[in-house]
Amino acid sequence: MRGIMGNLNSLSRRKFISTTAAATAAIAMPGLPGFARQGVAGAPVLDPDWSKAGIIATRNSPYAKLKSVPVQAVTIETGFWSKRRETNVTSSIPSMRQELLDHGRMDNFLRLAGQSQAPQRGPVYSDSDIYKWVESVGFALQSQPLPAPELRSQTDAMIREVVAVQEPSGYLNTYYVGDKKSDRMQWKTQTTGHELYNIGHLLQGAIAYYRATGDPTLLQAGMRFVDGFLLPGYGPGANQAPIVAGHPEIEMSLVELYRTTGNKRYLDLAGYILQGDSRIPLTQRQIVYMFCGIPFTSRTKLEGHAVRAMYACCGATDYYLETGDPAYWKTLNVLWEDLSAHQLYVTGGVGARSDGEAFGNAYELPNERAYGESCAAIGNMMWNWRMLSASGEAKFTDVMERALYNGINSGMSLDGKMYCYRNPLAFDPSTGDKIRNPWYDTTCCPPNLERTFAALPGYFYSTSQDGVYVHFYDNSEMKWHLPSGTPLVVHQTTEYPWKPTVDIAVSPQTPQEFTLFVRIPGWSKQNSVAVNGKKIEGATAGQYLPIKRRWTSGDKVVLSFDMRPQVVHANPAVADDRGRIAFQRGPIVYCMEQLDQNEASKDSSIFPYYTARLTETTTDRYDPGLLDGVVVLEHPGSLLPPAAPALYQAALPQPAAGTDTKLKMIPYYAWSNRDLSAMQVWVPYQQG
Amino acid sequence: MRGIMGNLNSLSRRKFISTTAAATAAIAMPGLPGFARQGVAGAPVLDPDWSKAGIIATRNSPYAKLKSVPVQAVTIETGFWSKRRETNVTSSIPSMRQELLDHGRMDNFLRLAGQSQAPQRGPVYSDSDIYKWVESVGFALQSQPLPAPELRSQTDAMIREVVAVQEPSGYLNTYYVGDKKSDRMQWKTQTTGHELYNIGHLLQGAIAYYRATGDPTLLQAGMRFVDGFLLPGYGPGANQAPIVAGHPEIEMSLVELYRTTGNKRYLDLAGYILQGDSRIPLTQRQIVYMFCGIPFTSRTKLEGHAVRAMYACCGATDYYLETGDPAYWKTLNVLWEDLSAHQLYVTGGVGARSDGEAFGNAYELPNERAYGESCAAIGNMMWNWRMLSASGEAKFTDVMERALYNGINSGMSLDGKMYCYRNPLAFDPSTGDKIRNPWYDTTCCPPNLERTFAALPGYFYSTSQDGVYVHFYDNSEMKWHLPSGTPLVVHQTTEYPWKPTVDIAVSPQTPQEFTLFVRIPGWSKQNSVAVNGKKIEGATAGQYLPIKRRWTSGDKVVLSFDMRPQVVHANPAVADDRGRIAFQRGPIVYCMEQLDQNEASKDSSIFPYYTARLTETTTDRYDPGLLDGVVVLEHPGSLLPPAAPALYQAALPQPAAGTDTKLKMIPYYAWSNRDLSAMQVWVPYQQG
Repeated sequence: MRGIMGNLNSLSRRKFISTTAAATAAIAMPGLPGFARQGVAGAPVLDPDWSKAGIIATRNSPYAKLKSVPVQAVTIETGFWSKRRETNVTSSIPSMRQELLDHGRMDNFLRLAGQSQAPQRGPVYSDSDIYKWVESVGFALQSQPLPAPELRSQTDAMIREVVAVQEPSGYLNTYYVGDKKSDRMQWKTQTTGHELYNIGHLLQGAIAYYRATGDPTLLQAGMRFVDGFLLPGYGPGANQAPIVAGHPEIEMSLVELYRTTGNKRYLDLAGYILQGDSRIPLTQRQIVYMFCGIPFTSRTKLEGHAVRAMYACCGATDYYLETGDPAYWKTLNVLWEDLSAHQLYVTGGVGARSDGEAFGNAYELPNERAYGESCAAIGNMMWNWRMLSASGEAKFTDVMERALYNGINSGMSLDGKMYCYRNPLAFDPSTGDKIRNPWYDTTCCPPNLERTFAALPGYFYSTSQDGVYVHFYDNSEMKWHLPSGTPLVVHQTTEYPWKPTVDIAVSPQTPQEFTLFVRIPGWSKQNSVAVNGKKIEGATAGQYLPIKRRWTSGDKVVLSFDMRPQVVHANPAVADDRGRIAFQRGPIVYCMEQLDQNEASKDSSIFPYYTARLTETTTDRYDPGLLDGVVVLEHPGSLLPPAAPALYQAALPQPAAGTDTKLKMIPYYAWSNRDLSAMQVWVPYQQG
Repeated sequence: MRGIMGNLNSLSRRKFISTTAAATAAIAMPGLPGFARQGVAGAPVLDPDWSKAGIIATRNSPYAKLKSVPVQAVTIETGFWSKRRETNVTSSIPSMRQELLDHGRMDNFLRLAGQSQAPQRGPVYSDSDIYKWVESVGFALQSQPLPAPELRSQTDAMIREVVAVQEPSGYLNTYYVGDKKSDRMQWKTQTTGHELYNIGHLLQGAIAYYRATGDPTLLQAGMRFVDGFLLPGYGPGANQAPIVAGHPEIEMSLVELYRTTGNKRYLDLAGYILQGDSRIPLTQRQIVYMFCGIPFTSRTKLEGHAVRAMYACCGATDYYLETGDPAYWKTLNVLWEDLSAHQLYVTGGVGARSDGEAFGNAYELPNERAYGESCAAIGNMMWNWRMLSASGEAKFTDVMERALYNGINSGMSLDGKMYCYRNPLAFDPSTGDKIRNPWYDTTCCPPNLERTFAALPGYFYSTSQDGVYVHFYDNSEMKWHLPSGTPLVVHQTTEYPWKPTVDIAVSPQTPQEFTLFVRIPGWSKQNSVAVNGKKIEGATAGQYLPIKRRWTSGDKVVLSFDMRPQVVHANPAVADDRGRIAFQRGPIVYCMEQLDQNEASKDSSIFPYYTARLTETTTDRYDPGLLDGVVVLEHPGSLLPPAAPALYQAALPQPAAGTDTKLKMIPYYAWSNRDLSAMQVWVPYQQG
């Protein structure tokens, strides 16, 4: 075995030594005055108290250019996201609770308390299903009125049942018990066993629930694990056993625990895990697949398991936001360039390969076989949120918007009860594949979607030392304050993403000079921005337009974007999109479903014969009765005569004379909400 | 549990009962007079003795329309295949022996004999590596002069070392020993443990070696396993434990053992395994992946692990050749239609998905990500050989030829020391993928390629009650006999596949009326056939042309095929080949390698910008100095200016004006034999 500190560079080694020497601090702060939320519909408290944190609490993060605005400071009003969010709390979260119970996820805890005879059920990461669900309730409680009070009491009961089986050491896991107890925290277990992944989700769920309710029960359990079990026994010290995350997740949750408690040992532990520990002899294959175990700053491309990679990037960005380590920022930007130039589906999904749920090679973006796991798209959005927080650059928000409106939003059916694990960009029902399902035994995606939709208000705004950023557009109200402390209300009125105009009323309590940064989406080629009717120059696609002025209550900003339908083509290096075009309108990416076509047929074999004309004469029309109300597109195309059945023909391909038709398209996120039907995002075209 | 006979239909049940009742027969027949081969270069013995069997011995198979011609009855002379076959015996087989030794494959046996201290090495199927290698030696000894006598003595020694550790029960496996002994033949072990797969390869290797040398040592060991261990304890009987093949292979080897011994219990056991045993509670996923465990005749499509599926189809066809069960023939044809219409690469490879090494959905034929395992292409050829034997239909030979010249031939480097496991149809070296390697820890493909090239002469000819079939074309001589017993020599002179003409001299010992069936390849659009200078009408692509006449020694048939380069396009339902064309000339499928292009660059990023013109003006030229001598193609094309680096652009794709160039193409089988270079079979085209 190499020296136990063998792979830590001297800088890191010094850091860990000094941290160990100075190990102090860390107390939970339950029940601080004014923390407990006063009724779910109560007005947001305009106080910079840490308990009023954003999705991640970057208020005190020294390298966060943008500071989070609390989830509860923003109310999303009736508009595009309100239906989805209402379904989330009335249908998805309650029905997922029942699924979790039905599949033994709580019995796993109750058994250890002697309250259930049921055997252990589910994979090693089953505990995380509960924690992620608790997080979704936590964000829901922070962000909107709940439909029924029992959700709160049910969650409280669930948390009590979880905490009841925590061991005196602080260890908490329902899988590594009995004859599996000896596997605990062995490094081989860590590579696949998800012990720290489970605790990471416990911490995230606990923090969200604490920030919503002031109830520290679960958070204290998480801290008991970290303080009592993890920190004493595991880490870089000579008397500590080494850690490998296995499935990154613990890193970002430790940084958030640091933000929540001020205990720097949590941050340092995150840094140690991000650095890897050479005492664990990983194979190259493990290092690629797990996206951890070697210094994060030695990574040069996205590879391996996509969710692992995205969560590792989240943790690394969180670590950068607190430490400012330039090596991290450099690596994060290299990886982001790889993402945006080579690995990103037009839907914002990532992770092309089913094999290993992994990133593929550069430009490897298959459509029908796209994996595009919902969790990976969510991880992508979470990472870009952190990159945006660090930089204030709109290119990160563009990726978030692409993922949120398309590859994430597709992950939940409109009725909120069916979920995608894969999010393919083409589908043939004759394959027998089932894409939407109410339950997966690896049920990571459903509660991940639920926590994302519940947390949505927290992504809309940020503050900076210069003023306020507006990232997303929907009917909504922010009640927060300027860096100066002056209370500020921002109110949006819009029919975004269906209509191009957004009215923003900006109302500081007293007149103030500050900058309002409004995001001009990357897809919007022609833009106009006016303040109180006066045009502002400089609006540029893919940038924040800074409007610096003395703002007075009731000032009105009007944004108008370019919501004409767009034909999109991919880089020729994307083999799977060659000879194909996609359609986008505003942030919404479209798809064809066979059942919408004029020549609708249940026989999916005709679907490959639809081709688009290479023209920009796509028309759009809002259909309030379709799929909860969507803009549909129509584009000129042809239905070609079906080819001979031969797989190959020794002849030049002949441009076939087809029948003129209109290709009808719906938003991708709404696919597979009616009868099973063939679908494609990338439509082949014929020239001429 | 259902009744133990629950899933056997009444016909099968009766068969097994009667077999069990009548269990008799079966004796090995070592050392029959006249069997031992008289020197490797000795003249083939024109005697219908069973020891002079073909690759599979269909001489007595009642439902084989075509009867095999012995491997040793055919000599392949200097021509296309001779270099490959010489490399096979001088380089591949000896170097693979050394690799097997270096990787502990024989130590696994020696350890059990107390002659090695090395620990067990390699996966559960490691024994099969040795058996497959022995089979390659067996076929080599049957088919050509060996370069060095030590190959024979080395193999004899290896066989002695194998047989030495067979247990008294007949059991023989180096993995399920010691603390793994209790896993033996448990049904859960059978699903992944490859015990019967190993024995299947032992039998195939033993039979090939026996047919080459008359040495029954290994064959008797295999029979001891089957007679002593397998048949008494395993099968459909109430006192027998159930079997699932797990990885099909045992089925075809049991049928071959039946052909070799006449013991019908082997055939019945194969039938039982093909039927599945409902006492084993398999999941749907296992049934799909393993392609066994349910009645073979209930299958309706190819799915799951491609090699498993192909080997299962081989076994089922072998079973049909002996039993004539029409349900088998029906299913086999349904599966073959699925193969040829939906699942076959233009190279003859099968098994599109890396994930599970599996068949994909219909028309799912990715290029860069193609799995196309060498073993699967070989299994495809082996299956089609059996279908051809049953039917005499040339469509099966067409698939064999496509696989042999392309997707199999690509699997071994020209120097015979590097092997492909995957055979992708496009490649980008910047991915870091290594396609050709000297060793794989799962080293199924290398010895599989070796046994295939060694067995090649056995695929060239068949006889039927009407006469003789000529399947493949190369300089070669067959010395065998007509069904009547009249000795017959057929001699081919050709430069196939580079030149279109084949001269066949047909020399029966005495003048005879019979039919010579010459294969007109499916790719050959214009054909001429003449006997002694007189044109024969009726030559049709993809059919055997029957030439029935009274043949006299020295009669000369001249075939001329259409070897103009062809542009091939795929069915539009193949998403990955949309907007692309491939090139074929004769049986050879072509590819572009970047290093051959005029604008050769090591930067593979320019490779996506080559496009072909839609024209049939491809030129061809034989280059004797290139890649052991190949015909190269040139086709008009353009090199487009590289696109902007953006992954997506919101604009109509513009047909770019490129620089005129000649796309240079080499045979696909010869790719990756020079510097690492980008490669593609399917070349994108621009119209106009």
